[in-house]
Amino acid sequence: MAADTAPSYDFGLLRVGLSADGVAHVEINRPEALNAFSSQVWQELGACFGRFKSDGRVRCVVLSAAGRMFTAGLDLKEAATGPLGAAPDPAVDVARRGYYHRLAILEFQDAISAIETCDKPVIAVVHGACLGIGIDVISACDIRVAAEDAFFVVKEVDIGMAADIGTLQRLPKVVGNDSWVRDVCYTARRVPAKEALLVGLVSRVLPDKAEALAAAQATAASIAAKSPVAVVSTKHLLNYSRDHSVREGLEYTALWNTLAHNSHDMAAAVMASLQKKRAHFPNL
Amino acid sequence: MAADTAPSYDFGLLRVGLSADGVAHVEINRPEALNAFSSQVWQELGACFGRFKSDGRVRCVVLSAAGRMFTAGLDLKEAATGPLGAAPDPAVDVARRGYYHRLAILEFQDAISAIETCDKPVIAVVHGACLGIGIDVISACDIRVAAEDAFFVVKEVDIGMAADIGTLQRLPKVVGNDSWVRDVCYTARRVPAKEALLVGLVSRVLPDKAEALAAAQATAASIAAKSPVAVVSTKHLLNYSRDHSVREGLEYTALWNTLAHNSHDMAAAVMASLQKKRAHFPNL
Amino acid sequence: MAADTAPSYDFGLLRVGLSADGVAHVEINRPEALNAFSSQVWQELGACFGRFKSDGRVRCVVLSAAGRMFTAGLDLKEAATGPLGAAPDPAVDVARRGYYHRLAILEFQDAISAIETCDKPVIAVVHGACLGIGIDVISACDIRVAAEDAFFVVKEVDIGMAADIGTLQRLPKVVGNDSWVRDVCYTARRVPAKEALLVGLVSRVLPDKAEALAAAQATAASIAAKSPVAVVSTKHLLNYSRDHSVREGLEYTALWNTLAHNSHDMAAAVMASLQKKRAHFPNL
Amino acid sequence: MAADTAPSYDFGLLRVGLSADGVAHVEINRPEALNAFSSQVWQELGACFGRFKSDGRVRCVVLSAAGRMFTAGLDLKEAATGPLGAAPDPAVDVARRGYYHRLAILEFQDAISAIETCDKPVIAVVHGACLGIGIDVISACDIRVAAEDAFFVVKEVDIGMAADIGTLQRLPKVVGNDSWVRDVCYTARRVPAKEALLVGLVSRVLPDKAEALAAAQATAASIAAKSPVAVVSTKHLLNYSRDHSVREGLEYTALWNTLAHNSHDMAAAVMASLQKKRAHFPNL
Amino acid sequence: MAADTAPSYDFGLLRVGLSADGVAHVEINRPEALNAFSSQVWQELGACFGRFKSDGRVRCVVLSAAGRMFTAGLDLKEAATGPLGAAPDPAVDVARRGYYHRLAILEFQDAISAIETCDKPVIAVVHGACLGIGIDVISACDIRVAAEDAFFVVKEVDIGMAADIGTLQRLPKVVGNDSWVRDVCYTARRVPAKEALLVGLVSRVLPDKAEALAAAQATAASIAAKSPVAVVSTKHLLNYSRDHSVREGLEYTALWNTLAHNSHDMAAAVMASLQKKRAHFPNL
Amino acid sequence: MAADTAPSYDFGLLRVGLSADGVAHVEINRPEALNAFSSQVWQELGACFGRFKSDGRVRCVVLSAAGRMFTAGLDLKEAATGPLGAAPDPAVDVARRGYYHRLAILEFQDAISAIETCDKPVIAVVHGACLGIGIDVISACDIRVAAEDAFFVVKEVDIGMAADIGTLQRLPKVVGNDSWVRDVCYTARRVPAKEALLVGLVSRVLPDKAEALAAAQATAASIAAKSPVAVVSTKHLLNYSRDHSVREGLEYTALWNTLAHNSHDMAAAVMASLQKKRAHFPNL
Repeated sequence: MAADTAPSYDFGLLRVGLSADGVAHVEINRPEALNAFSSQVWQELGACFGRFKSDGRVRCVVLSAAGRMFTAGLDLKEAATGPLGAAPDPAVDVARRGYYHRLAILEFQDAISAIETCDKPVIAVVHGACLGIGIDVISACDIRVAAEDAFFVVKEVDIGMAADIGTLQRLPKVVGNDSWVRDVCYTARRVPAKEALLVGLVSRVLPDKAEALAAAQATAASIAAKSPVAVVSTKHLLNYSRDHSVREGLEYTALWNTLAHNSHDMAAAVMASLQKKRAHFPNL
Repeated sequence: MAADTAPSYDFGLLRVGLSADGVAHVEINRPEALNAFSSQVWQELGACFGRFKSDGRVRCVVLSAAGRMFTAGLDLKEAATGPLGAAPDPAVDVARRGYYHRLAILEFQDAISAIETCDKPVIAVVHGACLGIGIDVISACDIRVAAEDAFFVVKEVDIGMAADIGTLQRLPKVVGNDSWVRDVCYTARRVPAKEALLVGLVSRVLPDKAEALAAAQATAASIAAKSPVAVVSTKHLLNYSRDHSVREGLEYTALWNTLAHNSHDMAAAVMASLQKKRAHFPNL
Repeated sequence: MAADTAPSYDFGLLRVGLSADGVAHVEINRPEALNAFSSQVWQELGACFGRFKSDGRVRCVVLSAAGRMFTAGLDLKEAATGPLGAAPDPAVDVARRGYYHRLAILEFQDAISAIETCDKPVIAVVHGACLGIGIDVISACDIRVAAEDAFFVVKEVDIGMAADIGTLQRLPKVVGNDSWVRDVCYTARRVPAKEALLVGLVSRVLPDKAEALAAAQATAASIAAKSPVAVVSTKHLLNYSRDHSVREGLEYTALWNTLAHNSHDMAAAVMASLQKKRAHFPNL
Repeated sequence: MAADTAPSYDFGLLRVGLSADGVAHVEINRPEALNAFSSQVWQELGACFGRFKSDGRVRCVVLSAAGRMFTAGLDLKEAATGPLGAAPDPAVDVARRGYYHRLAILEFQDAISAIETCDKPVIAVVHGACLGIGIDVISACDIRVAAEDAFFVVKEVDIGMAADIGTLQRLPKVVGNDSWVRDVCYTARRVPAKEALLVGLVSRVLPDKAEALAAAQATAASIAAKSPVAVVSTKHLLNYSRDHSVREGLEYTALWNTLAHNSHDMAAAVMASLQKKRAHFPNL
Repeated sequence: MAADTAPSYDFGLLRVGLSADGVAHVEINRPEALNAFSSQVWQELGACFGRFKSDGRVRCVVLSAAGRMFTAGLDLKEAATGPLGAAPDPAVDVARRGYYHRLAILEFQDAISAIETCDKPVIAVVHGACLGIGIDVISACDIRVAAEDAFFVVKEVDIGMAADIGTLQRLPKVVGNDSWVRDVCYTARRVPAKEALLVGLVSRVLPDKAEALAAAQATAASIAAKSPVAVVSTKHLLNYSRDHSVREGLEYTALWNTLAHNSHDMAAAVMASLQKKRAHFPNL
Repeated sequence: MAADTAPSYDFGLLRVGLSADGVAHVEINRPEALNAFSSQVWQELGACFGRFKSDGRVRCVVLSAAGRMFTAGLDLKEAATGPLGAAPDPAVDVARRGYYHRLAILEFQDAISAIETCDKPVIAVVHGACLGIGIDVISACDIRVAAEDAFFVVKEVDIGMAADIGTLQRLPKVVGNDSWVRDVCYTARRVPAKEALLVGLVSRVLPDKAEALAAAQATAASIAAKSPVAVVSTKHLLNYSRDHSVREGLEYTALWNTLAHNSHDMAAAVMASLQKKRAHFPNL
């Protein structure tokens, strides 16, 4: 059952707004550090999208960042000393330390995967640099739009590691040009917005951040006006089907819709369609 | 063994022709209802492609539609009262009704999947509107060509439901631009032929339906002239491999070809190739 | 542990060079036969890439071919008489012969898959014709570049068989346009370099072979300058993730990186990055 | 929705009865041929269990055989001449014949799998010999009971082939002793009822067929008295979970029960349980 | 990294103790309600085992229950009114209510799965009745021992539903006798301890609860004396391998042990073994 | 095609014999070291079974060991210094060393998996101790018989590691009693032959090694007298099906048998069966 009381979206490094028509806006708000991902940033992101999942008021989400750029990537200063750090204590048993280190990576992954598992569509708006973990984040979103000044770098090889928070899993399923995906993952080269559009990493490029944000919000508003049962089901089933055979995807979909077809929204939508009116759908 | 007697292709809402060179032409023929998919339409489609599977005379298929458009989508009038209807009897136990409702969805899915499982390549020719179930249908085809006036809408969210007859499973594997796929699935926005070409939903756009049909038939004829063992194997293995890891796809392919390499067609093809002649291959 | 002595790359039909900065260059060198794939060619290719896997000096590979074209495809003369031949002895039991024939196909597949499983990125450079088995080979590479005169044909249906050395498994995951993939697999039509670029089969088209080779080598050199732990991990994880669900890919990646994060390269890379210097990374 | 009219169970080689309390009894009735499986037998079995699936009156099934034994196995006389026969026409292309032969095996498999996919529990009662295809059949049942004179032989290797209608897939999942399973599959040795009980192939051994049948019918009656929603769901979910990871089985189960929990049966059962009464549940 | 401060095991309906040698004892402690599973019980169980996962002091766990029996099953009174209840408000949209209801089932499942995912072996001690959810719980444990008075009932069909918290996924993988598993799942019949031993549901039957508990604690102590790296790895890899093919299990195991082989424990164990001494291993 | 010349079975630590009727006998022959598995032992085992795969003369294999016991397990002295050793050089980068260490584990696994992938049934005969790697080996065999003095220990936890050469993958699929499997894997306790028989780890227990060997050879001879096409297919399909869903196992089996049904053996076997004679089948 949906929570009786509205969850809190009071975060230290995120600004979260919710419009009357069901569009949440999440802004990564650590501009003084170029939105570098400290553990606080990703833990708050995970918590925020986790709450969206059960918050019937939220129907669609726009994700952007404050300041000069989307993100400079992982907070290397913190990483160098923390549990994901590159300077482990040699006195500690590698296998023991590894046991907990693996759990820490999984926790980080889960936080970013919350964007995917929240079931509400998420539109990323990228301006300026989008580096390293930024690619993991936008690959977990549904739709990507960019400002003309945006550029993208799968930066991880340049800090001596393979991307491990989702880029290597999701980017090849987001962009259908494997030669390009491998090129940018091995070389860490800079991809301008125009190239990102060409290969399909982003759907649209707008002149600047303000216009990109406006475009994303317009799309989000149009999605939020649909039946939330239909929209949430569509996202959930797209994600399930990506990871299963067509046959398994169809079987799961049949079962899901057996339940979802009980929604009043279908009757309302068909009626509205026949009457050339616009239906209004209650929150999930 | 192939059926001894030729199967019947006498349908009420389909017109089926078979050329001497092995190209079947299926025309959805319910123009007065804008080719809306009543259960009769999809049941006939399923039966038709099921028969193609065992009919050695059929080597390649062209699928098009009569009248003003490809299809207006699901027959909502029928759906509203039938087993997929949005107005269930509240006196009936939801779980019991659901048991049979799920079977009905699976039956609908199977009918459309017959396009894929018939093992003969299918080329869809789209003109005018291609809405809702129309996307499920063309996503199950192998190659798509369009007339300039064609447009495409993943319409289901607008009737309060998630697409459940194959679009969410196949479209993301047909078009390698996930940002675009999700955009059109969430917004139900209209995609003109030109955009469909750009993202790869269709391979070619021709000025009008007649030219599109002619282009499809030319391609079909060229496919029908190849060894049917080779062509059927290629389609079957592409579909198997889509749903399995590369390693599993390779192992299944090795086993399949161990059998298929016994075909006389290889010797005939190699001989013809060396003699710069054209080989003729018997039916499957 | 890496082999103590450097492996031999002395092959009869391959020329292999290794630059000081870790870029291996493999040239298929059977120009008088248009680089047709006899069993010697693919067995040597398999052996060569198998050795690359454990050779810490090799960080990135460029694969090209000598003479007029990349390859004319399978050596049909040999195939017609050999274990993959189209003219089996009818006195031999089909099931018995099949048992060994299947093993022979698997062996051929394994040789080409060595390009993928060697864990070092491989850049293919295509000039002139790239037919049949040539497509299997370049689909197993990571990045493809072409000279303007290059053209590509999935030729197998024309010799009466389905491609069975990797094309049907990998090409649809390399190019995100299924309508196009099926078109070229069913029709065996000729795809010029420009079209290959448009659909993403190749990443770049250069005026001629020399420039294409130079471009590939420049990219390879830039990859070879990175941490080999990072690069090898990236390739390995991209391949694993392609064949698993996102969730399974993430879990495997977390485990892999728990180990890889122990590398000194991360500390060195972060330090170099902070100091705006260039780090140097020892061989794997 | 359940069929409006009761399906026909009028078969030539099966006798089908349906008790008032929802127990169907299927008797294989070709005693003069020792219940050898001609294609008519398995086609009728497939049709019969296919109809059970949508027949709300059927809640549990008992499967037994008339005459001296359960079955002598495949009807070899028919097989020797038919599509599964061992004497193919050498003039026919092996690859072409194989294409249809494979479809024929799949059709045979589907008929026997209908026992599993009908969703109603099936209890097999074995007396006398149960050979070859008999093992395929009883492995697809849920529960097996035997008369003391029963014996079991995985007979296929003795006719020069591997079992292909389900034994090799299901027997190792039915009996948790792999050393035993492989022993009986490679040697085709005779397994008496007592040994079958010990390894768990059968749940109970009764003195004779009459008592075994009575025991099976008593168990079937007790199952038929339960909520059919609960029973059908349990069988469906056991089968799904056998073929998936625990995690996937749990997720599918959660979705299934989200629907099934809407059943009135739960309230009725809980109420009856609190009142120490016996609940009565309507048909599915 | 392991938590710096010891986690709290202060629960309302569980009693948790931790011995000096690393054996945790969890007692379900709601005897006045026959240990019926209210949501508080399973939420506390989930929290408790979740904390065990990161608590290096815990090496092995014994799970038992206070009072007359292990558990009477689900708390039906609570269930009848709560989110899993059988009496939903008809005014609420079935699809909307279902969306949250599914999340609630998944949350319940996750709590019980924490027994499995905590990576420390868990030994269940059953006395008296073990009904319904009790089977879900003990199936998620590693080893089961019973007192002579114990009996087991897969009770769910008797309350009109299919078991959905793990029984249908895990019981068939715990007990290798599918005929028996399906019998008890469809009939909800009572299984005495002796029969449970015979089919392998429990490993041992002891005269009474005190002796069963003592036996479990002795086994637990022997496990806790081993290298925790070895033990935790063994449980983790058994669970991974259960859900994957042998090949995938081997590949994951190779990667896992590449890391784990760095442990000091191997050297210590080998040394101790050669010196016929007993090694002592630090906590994880 | 089968190799033209018979492969060599001249090994240093294995004795290999081949009877006229197709039964190979492999004896692990390092009695002075209690058959401890040095890398030479497992490399020779892998090579030997790899050759069996393509050697048509070999139809069934018996595997036993010379001297006092089956095996004392891994050769710890070698392991302590070699690539799997517990004392790595701390100066070496953990990630780099790990890359090659993982390949070494995979190579070891492949050698033992050759017992499974050789497609000919393998019967293990165990006498005396069977420790550690010995369990990995016999779990990869098809059938296990034991002398009365045999005992079994999953020894790995006692040397500070998880078993990684197959025990954790195969033992739970060999023995259908998960409570027992986990007990012996966590405690490394000694399992006498009688207990091994009870849980199904071995199929038979004979008074001593000579009788166990004779029994194994009698079973092997009976298997070797069957059609090798049938036997090899049965083993191959049992292994495939273990690792796939029932549906996938059936589909692969149908394809496999479409080829195998072309064997002359079926006609010969059916004819012999009708004539109550014994058929003779040529080698594979």
